[in-house]
Amino acid sequence: MSKEKRIYKPKSIAGFPEWLPEERLVEQKWFDHIRRVFESYGFCNIETPSVEELDVLSAKGEVDKEIYVIERLHKDEDDKSEARLALHFDQTVPMARYVAMRFNDLVFPFKRYQMQRVWRGERPQMGRMREFYQCDIDIINVDNLPLSFDAEVAAVMYEVLEGLNIGRVQLRINNRKILMGLLESWGLQDFVPVTRAVDKLEKIGKEEVTKILKAEANLSADQIEKVLSLVSIKGNAADIRKISPANDTMKSGIEELAFVLDHLAHLPGHAVVGDLTIVRGLDYYTGTVYETQLLDVPEFTGSVCSGGRYDDLAGSYINKHLPGVGISIGFSRLFDVMRQTRPDLLGIGPKGPAHVMMTVPENEADRPLAYETARTLRKRGINVEMYHAPKKMGDQLKYASKKLVPYVWMIRDGKHEVKDMTAQTQGEADPRTWSAPNS
Amino acid sequence: MSKEKRIYKPKSIAGFPEWLPEERLVEQKWFDHIRRVFESYGFCNIETPSVEELDVLSAKGEVDKEIYVIERLHKDEDDKSEARLALHFDQTVPMARYVAMRFNDLVFPFKRYQMQRVWRGERPQMGRMREFYQCDIDIINVDNLPLSFDAEVAAVMYEVLEGLNIGRVQLRINNRKILMGLLESWGLQDFVPVTRAVDKLEKIGKEEVTKILKAEANLSADQIEKVLSLVSIKGNAADIRKISPANDTMKSGIEELAFVLDHLAHLPGHAVVGDLTIVRGLDYYTGTVYETQLLDVPEFTGSVCSGGRYDDLAGSYINKHLPGVGISIGFSRLFDVMRQTRPDLLGIGPKGPAHVMMTVPENEADRPLAYETARTLRKRGINVEMYHAPKKMGDQLKYASKKLVPYVWMIRDGKHEVKDMTAQTQGEADPRTWSAPNS
Repeated sequence: MSKEKRIYKPKSIAGFPEWLPEERLVEQKWFDHIRRVFESYGFCNIETPSVEELDVLSAKGEVDKEIYVIERLHKDEDDKSEARLALHFDQTVPMARYVAMRFNDLVFPFKRYQMQRVWRGERPQMGRMREFYQCDIDIINVDNLPLSFDAEVAAVMYEVLEGLNIGRVQLRINNRKILMGLLESWGLQDFVPVTRAVDKLEKIGKEEVTKILKAEANLSADQIEKVLSLVSIKGNAADIRKISPANDTMKSGIEELAFVLDHLAHLPGHAVVGDLTIVRGLDYYTGTVYETQLLDVPEFTGSVCSGGRYDDLAGSYINKHLPGVGISIGFSRLFDVMRQTRPDLLGIGPKGPAHVMMTVPENEADRPLAYETARTLRKRGINVEMYHAPKKMGDQLKYASKKLVPYVWMIRDGKHEVKDMTAQTQGEADPRTWSAPNS
Repeated sequence: MSKEKRIYKPKSIAGFPEWLPEERLVEQKWFDHIRRVFESYGFCNIETPSVEELDVLSAKGEVDKEIYVIERLHKDEDDKSEARLALHFDQTVPMARYVAMRFNDLVFPFKRYQMQRVWRGERPQMGRMREFYQCDIDIINVDNLPLSFDAEVAAVMYEVLEGLNIGRVQLRINNRKILMGLLESWGLQDFVPVTRAVDKLEKIGKEEVTKILKAEANLSADQIEKVLSLVSIKGNAADIRKISPANDTMKSGIEELAFVLDHLAHLPGHAVVGDLTIVRGLDYYTGTVYETQLLDVPEFTGSVCSGGRYDDLAGSYINKHLPGVGISIGFSRLFDVMRQTRPDLLGIGPKGPAHVMMTVPENEADRPLAYETARTLRKRGINVEMYHAPKKMGDQLKYASKKLVPYVWMIRDGKHEVKDMTAQTQGEADPRTWSAPNS
């Protein structure tokens, strides 16, 4: 590196979020909590590389997501023989590739969670995130996947979100077979125009959806009315069971949804609702579908967390029938909205993980004891930042209060005292037994 | 996504490592441990985006690392106005940019740790990793940085490595001012040819280094002998203090190194050695330098963890004088070497985080109690995987042993029994009080 002095003033890069240490501390707590809940249900973790071969990403056909390709700045001959690489745009395609490649090493049902960054090459002016975290769980099995898992992933995600301190959350659950069955009973083959239109219902309203159903799905006025009346149903398992099925597909959709709702009956009243409006746009889902609403944070629009059941995870990569069910949190957008609109709920404050700041004693002879005390406390699981210079106690305390360290430890003539920076109280303490009064 | 069925058999991508769930479980334990130690000393965490502007990465002049640039697959007009983006090749440049941009929001001394992936656009046939994790700590201050931090980062890293169960580790510490001072006393201006040559000593031997020192640094035979004799010195603080300084630079190097070694005297005998061979190739470092050797894993060649003190972190981005000291573990290579050569030390085994597998009771009436018991145990911090189907107990146990779940819980007629899968013993248990005997 040359020593030439030229200042290049850096700017933020649109769409690539970055937090201050005090914000990151809360983000880490969120990740820790999410991971703890996932693991408490036995989900294992995997991480895949940030890149996949472009051919892998597009094996299922046209990709509708914007993709970032990567290229060596200084290319040479060798590159020509190499496959083109691109940053993954979700965690589902990489998981499918992983399961296909490592099929013989995995135990099925394969329950995995994944919490990585994904990238979308969005146009810069759209203000969307181009790099963000997703937190996904999926359960994959060979040939058959018990329906109890559809309830399990919902229970897991409710527990995750409920523990983030973002107010009350509600999982809205449906089963696509109900609407599919109705359409099937009319001889309809292509469901996508209908599910796409219904998916927009809450955004654009009944009238607009009616227009689309007429123009794009060729439904009659009577059929449109039936669709809109069906998708307006909301309720518990008993309400769902009241729907009269037009055929077997619809019947099994009703039964499955009621089964899933029954299995979530231990959750609080607001936690789960059967909601036939939820259909998801993609034709990827074949049964249960989920969306999630924050009941107390109107600033967050759309679904925090969605997913569903699919028939065939990795058919593009392996000749096995692998049904699965999964659900995904769009982590970074949720965190960012909460950070901007509800910093009070997030508890952003301390600028580091230290529980205690150990001061440098005024008397040089006490210094070794200060180091030793810090080591004793650390061994007991307490995070201790050692102050860095022999300054006046007042200056040292100022530093601790600037960083919002909750406790300050002082040693004078071999005696220990701890100051509670919040309560502004001070008292004797023994490093072998001390613990923060409020932790 | 189209439904057309075409199978694309995916391959591993050279240089982009990916682990099985049981390997990842150990990797997570390593990260957790490293993070716990960093935080116990009060280091805060930051994460920067995966990309920086290419101009930021190259602001210090020519970059010797291979860089990956990213580009939208479907570019359009808007892209032209955008800065070129590239994946970061280390965590130091992004930290420097971060500190410069957020200077007014940070509290100094700024102690941060960072554990992210970095990318090197290495040529594919070299077998090097092109995506890997680094775990870095650095302490940055404005204008002056107390020397006690040079001891602190070494103590932190020793504690980190010693806790990874990779045998004994040894930090080799030097101070570049010692050799610099000697060269200065001869009127030498450009130290880089000398430090580069000495840096290779252990790889290529004295004879080759002698040749280079003669040809590239123009040293006389007498000077070469003095350099080689100086850099062969190894010992504790007392040994270092015996070196007779040729000038003030050399003197302060000796004092600083002895000070740092004194401050690490509480560590075990093998943990730290003053070692004048360690000079590091880059001219970036200005005082203390570190390398680390695994004493019991000869399969790992080179330094696991290295770093040092630098005078000016972010001079390319901000008009402030910001000295710092830092050290970095090349995490993924260490993990990979250990994984391949010492799976016994790593403890790779269980394929998931479940402590307990809850069986589906043979009697359907016991099923609600099984779910409730699983919830009770989870609330108590125990990871419980619920078996997924009403199968024979033998089949359920087979699944648990395939995944190496340590305990299996069984309920029959309202009575609880737990089977220890390792000891193959079984006994009654109460979900409100049970804990694994060995945890």
